[in-house]
Amino acid sequence: MARTIGSYGPKTMEAIRKAGLRLIFEHGYSAMSLRQLAAAVGIQAGSLYNHISTKQELLFDLVQDHINELLRQLDLALLGKQRPAEKLSAFVAFHVTYHMTKKREVFIANSELRSLEPKNYDAIVKLRGAYERRLAEILAEGVSEGVFEVVDIQVATFAILALLTGICTWYRPGGRLTREAIIAAHEKLVLSSVTPGGTASPARTNPARTTPVRKRSRPARSVAPGQPRD
Amino acid sequence: MARTIGSYGPKTMEAIRKAGLRLIFEHGYSAMSLRQLAAAVGIQAGSLYNHISTKQELLFDLVQDHINELLRQLDLALLGKQRPAEKLSAFVAFHVTYHMTKKREVFIANSELRSLEPKNYDAIVKLRGAYERRLAEILAEGVSEGVFEVVDIQVATFAILALLTGICTWYRPGGRLTREAIIAAHEKLVLSSVTPGGTASPARTNPARTTPVRKRSRPARSVAPGQPRD
Repeated sequence: MARTIGSYGPKTMEAIRKAGLRLIFEHGYSAMSLRQLAAAVGIQAGSLYNHISTKQELLFDLVQDHINELLRQLDLALLGKQRPAEKLSAFVAFHVTYHMTKKREVFIANSELRSLEPKNYDAIVKLRGAYERRLAEILAEGVSEGVFEVVDIQVATFAILALLTGICTWYRPGGRLTREAIIAAHEKLVLSSVTPGGTASPARTNPARTTPVRKRSRPARSVAPGQPRD
Repeated sequence: MARTIGSYGPKTMEAIRKAGLRLIFEHGYSAMSLRQLAAAVGIQAGSLYNHISTKQELLFDLVQDHINELLRQLDLALLGKQRPAEKLSAFVAFHVTYHMTKKREVFIANSELRSLEPKNYDAIVKLRGAYERRLAEILAEGVSEGVFEVVDIQVATFAILALLTGICTWYRPGGRLTREAIIAAHEKLVLSSVTPGGTASPARTNPARTTPVRKRSRPARSVAPGQPRD
């Protein structure tokens, strides 16, 4: 990338973010050095510190901004939607469309959670929880109105989010299907998945185990030094 | 990890694989050095070459063995299953159960595809395609018998696999739900998702675009040097 005009301005910060996103996506957070980042932006390594204090701060900002933007745009997409099925359709269409264009952000937000320091990790998990809650509330509303049947709201929330985010692993513009066809295929899957009258047996909860499922889950931290491994 | 007895035997190779799996899971492939790997196993860096030629070979073996094992065990799980719904139930139960215990392997198989050299990448994509085909064939069979309704078999295959693999991001033994309850929740979602009579609009395919969706997709390679970058 050519040297950016105005090394102290917002353009440089934007160039740093863009280069950071690409380098972390290609090589991983641990493998990216600030020297490499500065070279990609076209500035001296020392000049980076006019814009970011640490590599950790950059990672945190990238992930945080991604989820904040997701939340902001989701709320716009849900505006004025009334019935649970209508809300769920809007959620599916928004999530799929957004994720078609944010492959790098999504990859980093998922694969580099392990690289966040505890305070930052907690902040991201909290923010992600707010996004998950939007979907969980739509499902719960549909269940209480009798239009959805869900064995477990929390499992269904995680499963539907995983299903929709899966698009990042294969979507490319100009493929066999139009965007509309891809959204329609996902709408059918998700709306049917919560339709009453499934064939599976009901869930058997274990009354002795009452810990919420996701909140305890910190994938990479579970193998941090000093903690049990396997 | 303590020094392994028998530096030239299969036990050392097993220790190398186990340590490699952990280090790549924690820090990423690029960030892991062979020196670090040797230290984790408790052998000299030079001794590693009695067991593996390159870091790349280790990554390839780890991912390849993971998918081969998936294929082998899936075929056992499907043995004797007749009807499409029965096969799909067996697929769901197997995939969820297997992925509950293979968080590291799955994470690496997904996040380090970018780090595979082209020849190895192609081999893994081919192997993964064989696993995906098992599910696609079950869906196609159900559609042709009229018991499943699927807008697009390929999109449904990727979406259902993503849904099921999502368990790796949150499952921990001893949580709120039993394994059986978690499997039942996933069975309801997946079996209902392909049940005829969904509420979404039908897909609109674009006749001008006929490229298969997944085969062209090489997430990290799409940003390799010399290729367009957004």
